[in-house]
Amino acid sequence: MPTLSDIVAARERIADRIHHTPLLSATRIGASVGAVLMHKCESLQKTGSFKVRGALNRVAQLDEAARASGVVTVSAGNHAQALAWAARDAGVRCTVVMPTTASRTKVDASRGYGAEVVLHGTSGIEAFARAHELAVERSLTFVHPFDDEAVMAGQGTVGLEVLEQADAVDDVVVPIGGGGLIAGIAVAIKEKRPSVRVYGVEPTGAAVMRKSLDAGRPVRLERMQTIADGLAAPMAGDLTYPIVRQYVDDVVLVSDDEIVAAMRELLFSAKLLAEGGGAAATAAVMSGKLPVEGRRVVAVVSGGNVDRGRVREVLGDD
Amino acid sequence: MPTLSDIVAARERIADRIHHTPLLSATRIGASVGAVLMHKCESLQKTGSFKVRGALNRVAQLDEAARASGVVTVSAGNHAQALAWAARDAGVRCTVVMPTTASRTKVDASRGYGAEVVLHGTSGIEAFARAHELAVERSLTFVHPFDDEAVMAGQGTVGLEVLEQADAVDDVVVPIGGGGLIAGIAVAIKEKRPSVRVYGVEPTGAAVMRKSLDAGRPVRLERMQTIADGLAAPMAGDLTYPIVRQYVDDVVLVSDDEIVAAMRELLFSAKLLAEGGGAAATAAVMSGKLPVEGRRVVAVVSGGNVDRGRVREVLGDD
Repeated sequence: MPTLSDIVAARERIADRIHHTPLLSATRIGASVGAVLMHKCESLQKTGSFKVRGALNRVAQLDEAARASGVVTVSAGNHAQALAWAARDAGVRCTVVMPTTASRTKVDASRGYGAEVVLHGTSGIEAFARAHELAVERSLTFVHPFDDEAVMAGQGTVGLEVLEQADAVDDVVVPIGGGGLIAGIAVAIKEKRPSVRVYGVEPTGAAVMRKSLDAGRPVRLERMQTIADGLAAPMAGDLTYPIVRQYVDDVVLVSDDEIVAAMRELLFSAKLLAEGGGAAATAAVMSGKLPVEGRRVVAVVSGGNVDRGRVREVLGDD
Repeated sequence: MPTLSDIVAARERIADRIHHTPLLSATRIGASVGAVLMHKCESLQKTGSFKVRGALNRVAQLDEAARASGVVTVSAGNHAQALAWAARDAGVRCTVVMPTTASRTKVDASRGYGAEVVLHGTSGIEAFARAHELAVERSLTFVHPFDDEAVMAGQGTVGLEVLEQADAVDDVVVPIGGGGLIAGIAVAIKEKRPSVRVYGVEPTGAAVMRKSLDAGRPVRLERMQTIADGLAAPMAGDLTYPIVRQYVDDVVLVSDDEIVAAMRELLFSAKLLAEGGGAAATAAVMSGKLPVEGRRVVAVVSGGNVDRGRVREVLGDD
């Protein structure tokens, strides 16, 4: 488990490479549920999501030999772009394995940041296996998208910033995919200010952490179906799960319709473009599923990488 | 003309009522023209545009009698919402005259902030006349959308913030409607740091300031046609024009296509929703019409109030 001092060290390591993203008031959305709502805007982070924090922290700690050989990961989305960016920034070669079904936009974005993209298999599971093979064949260091202490510590820097930026905060609401972001944030916040509640949010169609908590152990999902593709992790992490169990006050679920409504509200009220996963925390606040009335709430808008077609869907026809 | 000390005083008056909007890097957009580009995000300001700065500064300086009677203005857009908000915040009654052609969204937004909306005439000119009549009939104070020293001083606080937020800045690029925003910003910047260049941007279809500069006096436009409705002022201000002439280094024009391209780039690269007028400065930078290569440039994203239909147009069909 990453400690608070790991997270503080991560911050020193990455602070001058990332954006100190703004914490913005969302008065109108908050008022709709009787809360004072603020958004921590990681959609405005370099590469368009928080993922670059963990990637940078991981790459910064590679030893000489590992730096010379390069890194490899599997991701069809934000982690791929983030690791590609962080590796290039550090002068390290990066290989990303994506399923052949990955969107052209995301393949191009990773290539744009200088990564070699290997298309393999039709599922995340197959791509995962290929990435592990490549790690062995080419002596690459595998950088897990979430189940990695350095990655979690990097993501936890969001929590440190929230505590500094908010004059007062009662609740912090965080989207969950594999649990790396919320694990890091929960350690940072509960170790520094235990009275602050930390809530997790998952899409109904990819609720691996909720199911793991209910089962009492990390489970895998056979099928996932959600507009929040960034949150569609097929398993809870062996490392992230116990942290969530220990530190997170509750994990609630939101439907795709609730996510779309939040994306729309973020766009037209807060003027921010969020991807589905990026809007999940706001969706949970708006849905009334969290006891936030009368409280000061920070929702993490975790990413903004979404293509035109999806935005068109969100706008609807009326 | 508002002085630097008027602007500093304005800031003290309004600072705790407004958002200190972020200055965000736009690395990719800047790199496309060889510049280091930052956006001053007034789209994230209260009521969705910079207009609330001037409105608050004006309302704060009403005397007792004027406060008791109330204020009136004419605007089909951001100034209406801003004045309604500022007046309500100060406990002052607000009347807004809009042409009968004003969009339902904008009428509703002003009513939502507590203003009485009077629909009159089919043009800004007719609505303007009605607002002046109401001012006399009801002893209301008319608050001009731009040609007012207190309003300009309020808008100028954007310039003070930019100088403080940017480690270094060479050029500041500002959209022009009637000229209130650029007049305030230009005074602030040229009085504090004269080496910084200030550029104005107008849409080709509503280029009243460019035409006024070319004519050597403030002119009126018979017709306007632009996607940037917030910049469609029918006249340059008698007060704003001489300030622009004295302080602004150049005023360039951008087409609607260039504005749409900038709105799209702001949305998908910077993750920010900007209205047409709000994207005009970014459009000017992207267009290559400004000599910004190798320079540190701040473009003011002046507003983000845009409805779904317009965003759909910006997304296009491909």
